[in-house]
Amino acid sequence: MSIGDRFPKVDGPAKADGSGVYADDISFPRILHAKILRSPHANARIRKIDVSGASRYPGVVATLTGDELPVKYGVIPWTQDEQALATDHVRFVGDEVACVAALDERTAEEALALIEVDYEVLPAVLTPEDALAHPEIKVNERAKVGNITKHVNLQFGDVDAEVARATAIASQKYRYAGSTHVPIEPHCAVARADADGNLTVWSSTQIPHYVHRELSRVLGLSASKIRVIQPLLGGAFGGKSDPFALEFCVAKLALKTGRPVKILYTREEVFYAHRGRHPMNMDLTVALDRDGRIAAVDNKILIDGGAYASFGLVTAYYAGQLLTGPYRFGTYRFDSYRMYTNKPPCGPKRGHGSVQPRFAFEVALDEAAEKLGIDPIEVRRRNFIGEQVETVNGQKITSNGFLKCLELVEQASGWKERHGKLGPGRGLGVAGSMYISGTAYPVYPNEMPQSGILVKLDRSGRVTVFSGASDIGQGVNTLLCQIAAEELGCDPHEVTIVAADTDLTPVDLGAYSSRVTFMAGLAAREACQKLAAKLHAAGGSTFAEACQRAEAEEGAPLAAVGGYRTQKLGGDYRGGTIGASPAYSFTAHVAEVSVDEETGIWKVEKIWAAHDCGKALNPSLVEGQIEGSVYMGAAEAQMEEMVYDAKGLLFGPSLLDYRIPTSVDTPDLESYIVESADPNGPYGAKEAGEGPLHPAIPAIANAIHDACGIRIRELPFYPQRVLALLREKASGLRRQASGI
Amino acid sequence: MSIGDRFPKVDGPAKADGSGVYADDISFPRILHAKILRSPHANARIRKIDVSGASRYPGVVATLTGDELPVKYGVIPWTQDEQALATDHVRFVGDEVACVAALDERTAEEALALIEVDYEVLPAVLTPEDALAHPEIKVNERAKVGNITKHVNLQFGDVDAEVARATAIASQKYRYAGSTHVPIEPHCAVARADADGNLTVWSSTQIPHYVHRELSRVLGLSASKIRVIQPLLGGAFGGKSDPFALEFCVAKLALKTGRPVKILYTREEVFYAHRGRHPMNMDLTVALDRDGRIAAVDNKILIDGGAYASFGLVTAYYAGQLLTGPYRFGTYRFDSYRMYTNKPPCGPKRGHGSVQPRFAFEVALDEAAEKLGIDPIEVRRRNFIGEQVETVNGQKITSNGFLKCLELVEQASGWKERHGKLGPGRGLGVAGSMYISGTAYPVYPNEMPQSGILVKLDRSGRVTVFSGASDIGQGVNTLLCQIAAEELGCDPHEVTIVAADTDLTPVDLGAYSSRVTFMAGLAAREACQKLAAKLHAAGGSTFAEACQRAEAEEGAPLAAVGGYRTQKLGGDYRGGTIGASPAYSFTAHVAEVSVDEETGIWKVEKIWAAHDCGKALNPSLVEGQIEGSVYMGAAEAQMEEMVYDAKGLLFGPSLLDYRIPTSVDTPDLESYIVESADPNGPYGAKEAGEGPLHPAIPAIANAIHDACGIRIRELPFYPQRVLALLREKASGLRRQASGI
Repeated sequence: MSIGDRFPKVDGPAKADGSGVYADDISFPRILHAKILRSPHANARIRKIDVSGASRYPGVVATLTGDELPVKYGVIPWTQDEQALATDHVRFVGDEVACVAALDERTAEEALALIEVDYEVLPAVLTPEDALAHPEIKVNERAKVGNITKHVNLQFGDVDAEVARATAIASQKYRYAGSTHVPIEPHCAVARADADGNLTVWSSTQIPHYVHRELSRVLGLSASKIRVIQPLLGGAFGGKSDPFALEFCVAKLALKTGRPVKILYTREEVFYAHRGRHPMNMDLTVALDRDGRIAAVDNKILIDGGAYASFGLVTAYYAGQLLTGPYRFGTYRFDSYRMYTNKPPCGPKRGHGSVQPRFAFEVALDEAAEKLGIDPIEVRRRNFIGEQVETVNGQKITSNGFLKCLELVEQASGWKERHGKLGPGRGLGVAGSMYISGTAYPVYPNEMPQSGILVKLDRSGRVTVFSGASDIGQGVNTLLCQIAAEELGCDPHEVTIVAADTDLTPVDLGAYSSRVTFMAGLAAREACQKLAAKLHAAGGSTFAEACQRAEAEEGAPLAAVGGYRTQKLGGDYRGGTIGASPAYSFTAHVAEVSVDEETGIWKVEKIWAAHDCGKALNPSLVEGQIEGSVYMGAAEAQMEEMVYDAKGLLFGPSLLDYRIPTSVDTPDLESYIVESADPNGPYGAKEAGEGPLHPAIPAIANAIHDACGIRIRELPFYPQRVLALLREKASGLRRQASGI
Repeated sequence: MSIGDRFPKVDGPAKADGSGVYADDISFPRILHAKILRSPHANARIRKIDVSGASRYPGVVATLTGDELPVKYGVIPWTQDEQALATDHVRFVGDEVACVAALDERTAEEALALIEVDYEVLPAVLTPEDALAHPEIKVNERAKVGNITKHVNLQFGDVDAEVARATAIASQKYRYAGSTHVPIEPHCAVARADADGNLTVWSSTQIPHYVHRELSRVLGLSASKIRVIQPLLGGAFGGKSDPFALEFCVAKLALKTGRPVKILYTREEVFYAHRGRHPMNMDLTVALDRDGRIAAVDNKILIDGGAYASFGLVTAYYAGQLLTGPYRFGTYRFDSYRMYTNKPPCGPKRGHGSVQPRFAFEVALDEAAEKLGIDPIEVRRRNFIGEQVETVNGQKITSNGFLKCLELVEQASGWKERHGKLGPGRGLGVAGSMYISGTAYPVYPNEMPQSGILVKLDRSGRVTVFSGASDIGQGVNTLLCQIAAEELGCDPHEVTIVAADTDLTPVDLGAYSSRVTFMAGLAAREACQKLAAKLHAAGGSTFAEACQRAEAEEGAPLAAVGGYRTQKLGGDYRGGTIGASPAYSFTAHVAEVSVDEETGIWKVEKIWAAHDCGKALNPSLVEGQIEGSVYMGAAEAQMEEMVYDAKGLLFGPSLLDYRIPTSVDTPDLESYIVESADPNGPYGAKEAGEGPLHPAIPAIANAIHDACGIRIRELPFYPQRVLALLREKASGLRRQASGI
């Protein structure tokens, strides 16, 4: 079993039989449980915090306030604007104010009620438009101009001239609602300090290395005294890729009390921790020449960021940079504002930054093509950017299986026979997309490898791979087993993966931007190849025997390292190609929907999804990623939305009120793997975990158009929205018929 | 803090505050507890074992009998004569017969009573003399001739001719009683099998690598599917350096039931597990020439081995081989029989094999010197073998600080002024000894390193040392921290030691023969020096910065390996120098005793112990080892003895009945470190953990002689024995006075 095999996930049995250890499974004698007091106001000054009542409450061992953790942090070094606990300003309903550690969770919870906070309630801004319009209401002091987290304005070619010259133009406003990740496992962190003043933090994070760095900065404790361990993770999807208040609070409380401390967020708190999909208001123009070729794209986006920056700087870039494939753009202009608002901070959710503009673009492309009478698949094929080519904004595409993806979904869906011919209330829609396999730049500037792997061979034939990479369900630990087995010629069942423990494993930057399998995979291949050469030279009739001979030859244990460092791909951190990746994945979906034109109630009947992942290192895992992505995209199209009241209070932060599709709401899926053998990826592999999400939403929107002739431009596609558009269309038709 | 510093033990705080994890602290959901049924007979055939009653007992999950674990094992590959559970023959009272796993320990214990075993009781041999005399009573089928485990007969030069020519001869019989280790922590093992059929065994062992190998052989499961982890150990002293029945039982039961299984021996069972000091009957002749030089030593030993071989093959060699320093022997003959007897098997206890003949030899040397009127210290000084010299049996001594040791204890004790002059009932005695720092031969023949170390540097400046070596309290993990700090220039508090886990750490053969610090230390130094060269080349103003620069330079994680492989030192596995070591330690003690001549009650007033450990890598640890050794030696001299009744039943296998000295029984100790900078050892270091035990016993015996003129030749030196000798001396004096 090795590369290309359907090797079962290595963490599957432990997750299935309950023996797997998640952060909340970790406990120690004398452990304390802590709870965080949160702001009831969307924007307020704190005049005073009095924790004395709480600290006297029986069972309370320690309290913590922001002045004990004053250093600001944040996942992007240039936008560190968060504080574990507020000192003078709370910025959203749910913002962290104070913390209590007690003998048990309930006591800590009860003691929170005894903390007295004197707030001066301030007016709040709850939309990016308001945030722009009211610079006098300051959401976050980091913003130099108004409430702008980041403004990106880039232009490639003379867009206005091309638009003026174009034959068919689709220019509309789109609105993409905010949604959140909803991992099964809430955030949880446990900290323990030892007698030497060394601190260990177990956290449900997807960025253990970055948490390591930030704990060091915020606590003022050398990183060499801190160990961060990521246990099994119960889902993340980008929602655990920031440092969070709970990590600093447990760490500080453990140092303060000398006792282990745990914080487990409630489901409600997970909604405040958020970092989910940014709501975006998009103003998009796609201009085609008479042959249906893309002459110009003009992309203006106002991004609703919430109260802190999180990955927002990157979001502001990704929203523009990642749109420039799989189609060739003649010219391109991109202007985005990522705004601070008094709501829980948005961040990276699967398909970070590019899911929203992709929706707008793929709908606009259909609309413009329709004006020229070109079939939606044909217009995509005609604009195919090709392989070994550079995008208008300088991104270097290597392999590209997009045409094959299109062809597969075209055939599987019976597109030619069925598109536009399914009669009223049923339709097919297509969409394509491109995504990255990691980016050229580490999350903080340095020349060290982005991924490191250390492999050790035992004379028994056991292989141990030390990997800093975070398995967040994408299966990187399984793939590392397969890579070791492939290179070394051993049984993948006899490979131990030691993962995501800053003491034991080399550094990997974290699970974001679909970088993990690509980068850790290349590092692992390098390490294993070094060892394979030694085993080959040593000979031996079994794997264990070869290990023994090589160890005798070496006179030392058999171990080797591998590292992955992206070649600089032009541009700089703040420059034009901040999304530049060593390899791009491509996806095409066809969605089939049925729409009840009386009620607006609609349903995705089926989605055919073809994804170019380069080489499928493990087809089962790739299919899992495609299916999970399509599910999540369809979910956003159907029902997911973070909704706030006029005071910034999130409606129903629970799984009763925030609706996600159950199995009966989930469309029939057919996934297709397209292999394109990328020259940069490990064994030709590219990303598979985020790209396949993108086309689901526009393919559904385009299918709704095919079914009933409406263009829906706002998510979610609630039945009442569909119904309103149907009524608008009907009244337009009536007006037309009546000649008004 | 680094080499030579008094760095506190790294595992100290966790052991002191209770957070340390010993084997019995390990538990898992659904764990089963197992108990072992033991033989009530010293020698019996098993006609039938019926476990059906036990298996039906409520709460019992599984039973296990010997036919399920039929493969024989043992720590020495040539003498594998043990079976986890007996199938047809039990060989001592306490031998393992069957095992029951239940929901809790009490249920398992209760179910043992329901196992029906049909025994045919056989006559037993309980002394080595009986074992020799009755070859028709077969203790262990492995013995080819009679009940002999191993017979060693070696002669260097013409001993008989030199004895005939000698001026002063001391030729007497000595008896050294058996004693046991009494670690605070009883043996404990936990096993867990995962869904892939991989097995993890946590065991309170000092030989995880060897347990790994033997589990593989006995279970018929590839070693690559087995992981052995040694948790914190609560004492071992050689008593945990065999594979034990409990390890095989928990492993088999975990595989059989699919549930985790634990066995924790009771204190009584620890006495049956034993492997303690071999009782030896010694017939020793020391012949001096007229100048007091050792002309010949004739050493005949009958060793009482118990029912299995354990390390007995090695014991039979060590009893002779390790006597040939620190004095030069003119000629030497050595003849030893290690016998099987129907008692718990003896094995390696601190100072393995050589403590007993050392006692006899140092007493005999005093006696012979007395005949020549030579002072006991002077005779030792005169016979000093020197440095860079070969012993009569071919062992190569490198550094040798024995004269300095002698001088220190001579001065400290006021020997010159006080020896022979303290008046009746008080006296001083001296003794010397030599011990090994590991041996040239691995416990099983192979060309691989005996110790391997893997070191990884994190960009935070954290250093992680992966070491297979067993820290059994001797402090090797602390020393590895210091070596890393010394070579790398980092803070030893920022070094993580990952130890004794066959998946995570390189192989080290185990904690025996005082090999660990010497061999793992050399391997660690090698690995760290490789990394230090990279850090040096990279530069940087802090340690962390140097790590970062070097990692950037390397483009991969920073890691390096080191290995230690003894040079072959002549001879072969079964040959004349089986004890040959890369370096020898030397010790001298002076003991002061007081004896109440009315009652025979005596007391060690003080022991001055000087030990040549080469270089004291950590003086506090060396002093701890000296003090612990002296305590243990004095304990054997005072009171420790394994006593059996006529049917082979151990008297009082409990800490109420088996007496070890408490703090009030412990003599005043003064320890002196002598440094001799050994060319082979790490930083010049040699062993410190076993050598300092040896002279305690003969120094006490010689001091008793100085106090009251008796030569005590049998351990322990019970007051009634002392009294009997005093009465014998008195009656001799009376006879002399009356001219009879």
